[in-house]
Amino acid sequence: MVYDLVIIGGATSGLTAGIYAARKKLNAVILTKEIGGQTLQTESIENFPGFEKISGPELIDKMKEQVQKYGLPIKSGMEVKSISKIGDIFEISTNMPDEIKAKSVIIATGKNPRRLNVPGEKEFENKGVVYCSTCDAPLFGDKTVVVAGGGNSGLNSAFDLLKYAVKIYVMEASDKIIGDEFLQEKLKASGKVEFITNADIKEIKGANFVEKIVYLDKKTGLPADEAGEEKTLNAQGIFVNVGWSPSSAFVKGFLETNEYGEIIIDPKTNETSVKGAFASGDVTDVKYKQCVIAAGEGAKAALSAYDYLKSKLS
Amino acid sequence: MVYDLVIIGGATSGLTAGIYAARKKLNAVILTKEIGGQTLQTESIENFPGFEKISGPELIDKMKEQVQKYGLPIKSGMEVKSISKIGDIFEISTNMPDEIKAKSVIIATGKNPRRLNVPGEKEFENKGVVYCSTCDAPLFGDKTVVVAGGGNSGLNSAFDLLKYAVKIYVMEASDKIIGDEFLQEKLKASGKVEFITNADIKEIKGANFVEKIVYLDKKTGLPADEAGEEKTLNAQGIFVNVGWSPSSAFVKGFLETNEYGEIIIDPKTNETSVKGAFASGDVTDVKYKQCVIAAGEGAKAALSAYDYLKSKLS
Repeated sequence: MVYDLVIIGGATSGLTAGIYAARKKLNAVILTKEIGGQTLQTESIENFPGFEKISGPELIDKMKEQVQKYGLPIKSGMEVKSISKIGDIFEISTNMPDEIKAKSVIIATGKNPRRLNVPGEKEFENKGVVYCSTCDAPLFGDKTVVVAGGGNSGLNSAFDLLKYAVKIYVMEASDKIIGDEFLQEKLKASGKVEFITNADIKEIKGANFVEKIVYLDKKTGLPADEAGEEKTLNAQGIFVNVGWSPSSAFVKGFLETNEYGEIIIDPKTNETSVKGAFASGDVTDVKYKQCVIAAGEGAKAALSAYDYLKSKLS
Repeated sequence: MVYDLVIIGGATSGLTAGIYAARKKLNAVILTKEIGGQTLQTESIENFPGFEKISGPELIDKMKEQVQKYGLPIKSGMEVKSISKIGDIFEISTNMPDEIKAKSVIIATGKNPRRLNVPGEKEFENKGVVYCSTCDAPLFGDKTVVVAGGGNSGLNSAFDLLKYAVKIYVMEASDKIIGDEFLQEKLKASGKVEFITNADIKEIKGANFVEKIVYLDKKTGLPADEAGEEKTLNAQGIFVNVGWSPSSAFVKGFLETNEYGEIIIDPKTNETSVKGAFASGDVTDVKYKQCVIAAGEGAKAALSAYDYLKSKLS
């Protein structure tokens, strides 16, 4: 059998694409490692329009049911290994023996934050350890917060926190804050922000929530055998901004990606560099990575795939 | 007072922009004629992710409460007459005496479908008279449906209906179906679609729902004093596809618009032709006009406005 459309990825963007594909009566399927992806990790979403407050798993559950209502199958436990296109047909290899064939595909596999990989990071995720300042800065009113990462993404996190937190430490492992001068000045002028360079974060400590950040102060000019001095800061939160990895390894060489590994799309139509292959949400070069934006992009990708299939009818 | 941001339009896109602006603690306001706009007319929305089925007014209510939770004011009864930009400041004239000033604006005023303006059209809206096939085709399983309009938008509606309706009449007032040949052929091949040209729709009749479409069959070659023959078709629905009017009159000459009057945006950032002015949702040249897409675009526009304001700080 050749599907009209295979949607790879079962989080917000893929599920929304599924709703639209099903209502267009496409013979489609969603393949995903795990239904929900990154959204599952989110304890409380307050910026998805229509829900004053909802947990990630709850929101995903609602979308999943909506897809299933239309009878569109969701196959989880499926890891896509590679995609190729022979003539007009896409061939998708997964961890299962049989190849899957489709006339069109949507890639909506999202992204993952890079971790600090230090003790306490996993334990306190959503308990003070967060990865998205647009999502979570409002939770840190009157708190002291550490931002890990002195690039632009860290500085923007600090900026988002200015109106909420009382004190912000921006920690950078190298000897220099590399984010825009302009942002550095704004942050300095606030009187709330302190920059700490040469700081290797070693551990996140607390009882139920983050309480302390332990780091190594690698004073420059230390002899090679001295690692530096271990220091501890009191803080109720840590915003980790050390980069993101789009889950796009399986399309490497097949679709055009940018320097970050994000799939390059036409932002009007979600078309990729290969005709009939669309992409949506956080795995793409869409500028802002937000749940409701990923949903809208999923709908666009499905409608574009539908138009593409219509144009190929013969 | 000069606002950081004025959002013009209080439907899905404007309200979502409001949620994002409020969470970024911008000093912002929403100005709108009526909270909800076109979405208010929708009896049942089944393709907004997270809601298996919700009425338009209910969905709008939830979004409105979400905006208000953050203390962002929504001023309804406000009709914007014009916008200008003096230096870096936008000046917005409304039906109220005072001008409103802002450092940035988002225009999210939506669009309205053109109507047939015949008896019965208003009475049976959402009771068989519909304006969006992507939204409503699934409601017409095993029904006979008239599509009003033989342009591409009408033909696409008929195509959307192919998998649902049993019989589709495409009615066109002129003497020729002008939509793509390719689509015409697909529709003909289905055996379900009949094209009726020279047809002036005169009335929509029914008890509780649409039952009959009355039209004038203007046979070509009739003498000028003969209007044609009145005919009646039994149908349970009519999809009106005679165009849309974006609510963009007040930005004419200020922002670049396309041939349809839609505000032209950079699809990555929602920037318009004037720096600091953003637009989102159905009033723009975004390709697909759908509730969840308009929501995502509103979030994008608000985040872009936030970035713009940040870059102007001095």
